Amino acid sequence: MDPIARLQELMEAAALPSTSLELKRNEFLKTSGSIDTRLYYIDSGSLRIFFEDEFEEHTIRLGYTGNFIASLDSFISEKPSDLYIQAIKKCRVTAYKKKDYTAFLSASIEAKEIWNSVNEWLIYQQIEREKDILIQSPKARYKRVLERSPRLFQEIPLKYIASYLRMTPETLSRLRNS
Amino acid sequence: MDPIARLQELMEAAALPSTSLELKRNEFLKTSGSIDTRLYYIDSGSLRIFFEDEFEEHTIRLGYTGNFIASLDSFISEKPSDLYIQAIKKCRVTAYKKKDYTAFLSASIEAKEIWNSVNEWLIYQQIEREKDILIQSPKARYKRVLERSPRLFQEIPLKYIASYLRMTPETLSRLRNS
Repeated sequence: MDPIARLQELMEAAALPSTSLELKRNEFLKTSGSIDTRLYYIDSGSLRIFFEDEFEEHTIRLGYTGNFIASLDSFISEKPSDLYIQAIKKCRVTAYKKKDYTAFLSASIEAKEIWNSVNEWLIYQQIEREKDILIQSPKARYKRVLERSPRLFQEIPLKYIASYLRMTPETLSRLRNS
Repeated sequence: MDPIARLQELMEAAALPSTSLELKRNEFLKTSGSIDTRLYYIDSGSLRIFFEDEFEEHTIRLGYTGNFIASLDSFISEKPSDLYIQAIKKCRVTAYKKKDYTAFLSASIEAKEIWNSVNEWLIYQQIEREKDILIQSPKARYKRVLERSPRLFQEIPLKYIASYLRMTPETLSRLRNS
């Protein structure tokens, strides 16, 4: 079984306190400068995480139905972060507080083991993401992400995938059609 | 106490099997295409991790005395990876096999807890690194890394820091002197 699905199953079985949130398209779960230590499970819809520099927005994570999403820098450090979490489509998410989630992990050896594996998997994915960003050729960047996450292209509008891939929407359209 | 120093202390106390390696300047611990699941503690000297695309080398990690270094993608997946680990200066490193390290973690609750915190810290650092790479202004990239890792500039030659910061050595020199 997929470890994320198993984790979600254990969280439901443990009746972990949670809040269900409805988001309109473009609505924010978190904005820059705020602390957000919640973990979100995406019941439906899709979201992105981005930050801004003085020139533009940089989309750094994309999530859709069945994924967890969080401002992990703030979740880990419990300090404010400059990340935004925004709904790309109308969404329903289940929000868990860090303290409830931590108590749940302390009470379940299986959940704790899965979480540790998820963290390792995140480290691995972030190294792949770092390569994705640094590789110079837009075509090579596109191909790597298409191979790793084909579902992304069904779930997320091209303009956000283009920002995630550090290219213009026009370049991404051209690569899709070539 | 610094968690990395404490982890190293526990590893020594557990008499974890290890191999001491001497490396000449520019010598490789790992090259592209190989599996390397060892964890290295840097007793002296400094090393870098890089990969190549069709145009250039990209330095993605730098390590010096007192740090651990590993090709974490291969360490986690136990598969070949395209990363290189290379000595920047003459080095002495202590190499631990993953199976010995894993057995050590299973036998020590404290070590396991520290390792889980180190993994969280890695996730946090990788998000910061991702922002470092994406931010457009070279000056902003330089300032962020100087603030977070001032020792880097004492330990590592500028040309590798420049590659790490995605700029030419000339741009980095200009920023250092301005």
